[in-house]
Amino acid sequence: MIFLEADFGGENRSTRWQELSFAIVGLGLIGGSYAKALRKLGVKQIIGIERDAATLQEAKQQGLVDIGMTEPDNRLKEANVIICAIYPEAIVGFIAENVDFFNESVLLTDVAGIKNDMISRGQELLKGGMEFISGHPMAGRQGSGLGMSDAHIFQNANYIIVPEKHNTQAAISWLEQFALALGCKHTVQVTPAQHDATIAYTSNLPHVTAVALMDSASFDDKTKYFVAGSFRDGTRVADINPELWCNLFLANREKVADEIDKYMEQLVLWRDALRSDDGEKLKELMRKAGARRRELF
Amino acid sequence: MIFLEADFGGENRSTRWQELSFAIVGLGLIGGSYAKALRKLGVKQIIGIERDAATLQEAKQQGLVDIGMTEPDNRLKEANVIICAIYPEAIVGFIAENVDFFNESVLLTDVAGIKNDMISRGQELLKGGMEFISGHPMAGRQGSGLGMSDAHIFQNANYIIVPEKHNTQAAISWLEQFALALGCKHTVQVTPAQHDATIAYTSNLPHVTAVALMDSASFDDKTKYFVAGSFRDGTRVADINPELWCNLFLANREKVADEIDKYMEQLVLWRDALRSDDGEKLKELMRKAGARRRELF
Repeated sequence: MIFLEADFGGENRSTRWQELSFAIVGLGLIGGSYAKALRKLGVKQIIGIERDAATLQEAKQQGLVDIGMTEPDNRLKEANVIICAIYPEAIVGFIAENVDFFNESVLLTDVAGIKNDMISRGQELLKGGMEFISGHPMAGRQGSGLGMSDAHIFQNANYIIVPEKHNTQAAISWLEQFALALGCKHTVQVTPAQHDATIAYTSNLPHVTAVALMDSASFDDKTKYFVAGSFRDGTRVADINPELWCNLFLANREKVADEIDKYMEQLVLWRDALRSDDGEKLKELMRKAGARRRELF
Repeated sequence: MIFLEADFGGENRSTRWQELSFAIVGLGLIGGSYAKALRKLGVKQIIGIERDAATLQEAKQQGLVDIGMTEPDNRLKEANVIICAIYPEAIVGFIAENVDFFNESVLLTDVAGIKNDMISRGQELLKGGMEFISGHPMAGRQGSGLGMSDAHIFQNANYIIVPEKHNTQAAISWLEQFALALGCKHTVQVTPAQHDATIAYTSNLPHVTAVALMDSASFDDKTKYFVAGSFRDGTRVADINPELWCNLFLANREKVADEIDKYMEQLVLWRDALRSDDGEKLKELMRKAGARRRELF
């Protein structure tokens, strides 16, 4: 059992990556990608925590972790940083059950797609100099699992940092530097409420629109002969894991419902303009969307 | 001036491609792709009709046409088949102005994305043994213009055939064979009304959903930091030519408005399930969409 010198705590959040030990909780697509990116950074040590024994074994065989655990134990104290790459609803529970294995100055972060009050609830369970600094890399790829993980998902991605009242400037700055070191292009700071509201628009809503398009009563046995690129793109995320996404949607349900209302306002404009043969209105809507999209991408 | 033997007319619609002369009206993305595909079929002759002199010149230089015209003349009589690859609203006018240059047994076809009553109106202007057999290849690619044309767009595509009351079985069968010869995987026959209704769902609506997503009042200066794959895919066709698409939407406006109403029924199901915390309903919607999408692609 090695205890680190207390050179990573309080105001001193070192970004000399090769001197830091990291733990990654959950070695799926995102956790695995962090492991690969950390290997490229040449960090001192990577501890992998993964309940699925086969996945953990695979991670060890690929050299992605130096120490592997299916459940945390005292060796977790060696980690300066813990990255929780598990489902949002599992994070507070993970902290509650394992805080006694955390280093007294640990920086804990997450990648959850919904924040709610998780960050402050998580911080309340921490002790001493431990700090929970939340983040959300806007990075990913199709598929899931360790086998699909890739260090490159962070290249040019955006990293959202979600400071809570308890967070220190030192921790916020550390996470900014870390994101850039992973290859991200940009970081932005928002409150948990801003995060969840924006995610409701940019991520939750496009999944709803895709499912709704696929579920329209117009779908019949002729549809398959008439589909081309726009239908394919518009329904690309219509085939999603119902259990996983149900939890995500319900965790953000008020904001997603609000987004659907705002989205339907646009559809009503379209429907009314079509019924009243208002070509000028249609063109105005298309010009606005075209300009926004060109600016965005 | 060469007059063809009357071996292509009435019940005799030869599929010996090398013996047939084709004319293509409009040498853009689709027209150009037909020309390239016809070259591969080794047809007897390709006449290109294209108003833009530079495009016509380019087509000649690429060896895509044997005869080029900016406006039809009597040489058009050499064509057994005329493929109209011009905007739907221009087709009837083209026939009206140029029918005197058509071979007396010509087969005329089109690629228009909306049919309405165009086919019967077009047929009324034809004479003798001339027949308008309408079609719609569900093929294309991003971009526009001759430079982006490609014979491969037909590979494994679906080809919709839209017979009207006046059409002969010989013409319908010819177009089926032609589509397969181009590389298409499947043909299906529908009435003009069925075509326009299905297109309203599979093509018009996904463009509306993309524009509406982009135009939501939620879009602000933070949006760009939060977008990833689902937003990108969901708005991929949000940047479209307003004039072109305004015409398409208005030509099919009742059906597109109906599709928007049906689509909003799905969104209301989502919104109400979210507000009432009904996870089972959400999962049911996602399972249905997932199953449909897997079956489709």
